[in-house]
Amino acid sequence: MPLPIQDAHYMALAIALAKKGRFTTSPNPNVGCVIVKNDQIVGQGYHQKAGEAHAEVIALKDAGKDANGATAYVTLEPCSHQGKTPPCADALIKVGIARVVCATQDPNPLVSGRGIQKLRAAGIDVEVGVLESEAISLNTDFNQRMQKGKPYVQLKLAASLDGQTALSNGESKWITSTKARKDVQFYRAQACAVLSTSKTVIDDNASLNVRWSELPTSIQSVYPESELRQPLRVILDRQKKLHAELALFKTGGKVEIVSPESELFALDKKNNIDLSAVLKQLSAIHQVQKVWVEAGATLAASLIQLELVDELIVYLAPKLMGSDGRGLVHILGLNTMAEAIELDIKDVRMVGPDIRITAKILKNT
Amino acid sequence: MPLPIQDAHYMALAIALAKKGRFTTSPNPNVGCVIVKNDQIVGQGYHQKAGEAHAEVIALKDAGKDANGATAYVTLEPCSHQGKTPPCADALIKVGIARVVCATQDPNPLVSGRGIQKLRAAGIDVEVGVLESEAISLNTDFNQRMQKGKPYVQLKLAASLDGQTALSNGESKWITSTKARKDVQFYRAQACAVLSTSKTVIDDNASLNVRWSELPTSIQSVYPESELRQPLRVILDRQKKLHAELALFKTGGKVEIVSPESELFALDKKNNIDLSAVLKQLSAIHQVQKVWVEAGATLAASLIQLELVDELIVYLAPKLMGSDGRGLVHILGLNTMAEAIELDIKDVRMVGPDIRITAKILKNT
Repeated sequence: MPLPIQDAHYMALAIALAKKGRFTTSPNPNVGCVIVKNDQIVGQGYHQKAGEAHAEVIALKDAGKDANGATAYVTLEPCSHQGKTPPCADALIKVGIARVVCATQDPNPLVSGRGIQKLRAAGIDVEVGVLESEAISLNTDFNQRMQKGKPYVQLKLAASLDGQTALSNGESKWITSTKARKDVQFYRAQACAVLSTSKTVIDDNASLNVRWSELPTSIQSVYPESELRQPLRVILDRQKKLHAELALFKTGGKVEIVSPESELFALDKKNNIDLSAVLKQLSAIHQVQKVWVEAGATLAASLIQLELVDELIVYLAPKLMGSDGRGLVHILGLNTMAEAIELDIKDVRMVGPDIRITAKILKNT
Repeated sequence: MPLPIQDAHYMALAIALAKKGRFTTSPNPNVGCVIVKNDQIVGQGYHQKAGEAHAEVIALKDAGKDANGATAYVTLEPCSHQGKTPPCADALIKVGIARVVCATQDPNPLVSGRGIQKLRAAGIDVEVGVLESEAISLNTDFNQRMQKGKPYVQLKLAASLDGQTALSNGESKWITSTKARKDVQFYRAQACAVLSTSKTVIDDNASLNVRWSELPTSIQSVYPESELRQPLRVILDRQKKLHAELALFKTGGKVEIVSPESELFALDKKNNIDLSAVLKQLSAIHQVQKVWVEAGATLAASLIQLELVDELIVYLAPKLMGSDGRGLVHILGLNTMAEAIELDIKDVRMVGPDIRITAKILKNT
């Protein structure tokens, strides 16, 4: 029986493997697996793409005969149901795995615990909860979609240090640095969908796709250009202003236009596009689990006020642009400080010359 | 002869000692001194207050007879002239110090090098430049006053993450946290003068003094309440709106009102108060070497545009206040992004729940 520290050691490796899939596994979760026998790693694997082999199957194949009597470290409870691929629990049983260590149970309440039950019923020793928090944070987006039917929404904002997104004449190119824009490419690459508005697309002739050549070199080295997946670009366009000449339509990746004809389109009580419904439909129809929002101050304010934002990513450039520019969020008429939207800052760091702030929204007006 | 690493070791201690005086030495510099004989520390001291003993004299007294034949580590070139106290170079010679290691020369071009010359003329082995950058940064403000006749100006700004300093109705209490306000007390405590305007003083009934009870406990432990020095509060009040009932006049510390009767008062070509002249006069008349500015967006913009700000200290609170609030700097009418004021961010850190950014101004409009 290995010591707890050894279990944590192998699970940490399985988590590192799982992370390698983070640009390509959606709508599946990131999962990694390590097979250990007599304190030797005999097999390892991670899930790369939906429809392809699960982490456990790859690791078992890697281990070959050594899997018999070994311990399998898996970042997520092995599946017990027939999906696009056969159940992993069955595969583990079949080769004679002696012990399974899982970081977390399956977040889907409909199947959670069933894989573990199946393994135990077959006489396998199962332990759950090693490096659980780490493993949960691997799949925040997947977990949220499974549990709430709503994708994880990251809202990007960019401004000067004094909170201006453009000069009064509208000029906004470029407030942030090349390095910050590469960082944005990194977030887009991890997203299933990029959400924006026809106004932003037209004003900036924005393509909103992932340009592999602009990814940070640290990412390029683990995510080859041949594997590049483009996020679905979802553009709110109620008045059908988008036209075929835009860069949006001339660049790689699919576009979903949310105009009255779209199956994503619905109106809320205030006769605005029902953003909550759009997100839920994206999750239900397109299995979208992570949405990266790049738009203007109006959409930003709506998403915040509707409590649809899971994470704010704010880039602040080392500039002062003065007080007649354009603001970061278009929220008007706060009367008391208590009405301000409160944030919890999770991370602050430099990205080149700019500051990047990651925050959760604590309280809405 | 000690190794260079040993010289650096003792100089680092001398610098740490010098720092202890940072709330009380002005208009004198921070200086520390360590006396070492046979690789043993035999004396140490730092300058505490103008008019009282210099670091070298305290350290020599501490060392007593052991000073003879010892090495003195001093963060600044020993003085060679009779000031409020006798020249330190003479004191070092008199006790028979064998070697003097200085971190820096005197920044005052009129006396720089003379102390070293005097020591060498007396047969003492003198070395200069050990941990020089560290020692220079101990006295950035003193050095600037000596070299340019202008105090070092720190401009404090505070806003929500979206750059708002108040709601549209003027409410601004409290955007930042108690911890950030304690941090402000720390900066005020290190300043010779706090610069503000009658508008800020009246609107907020601000006292702008140092409240010992509000200093961070880490500072309280090294800076006892009995030693507390209040900065000179310098209030721009051209129209003489200040009145005796204000908290400003009911709290400890002196107030200098810059109204037309003041010796600090002068007008510039645009018929505004000549801020450059005010600062130079503060340096010349009051020996002010560090100014902490707390005021509104208008004074902030003027100081920035006149290139009078040496350091920006920006507190950003984890809040969004929307786009009809009040901006951080009142600069209007930028037409191109190239006109934006560029900053170089030197430090970013959390102060409680708030972010504190320290920046230099690179380029003005």
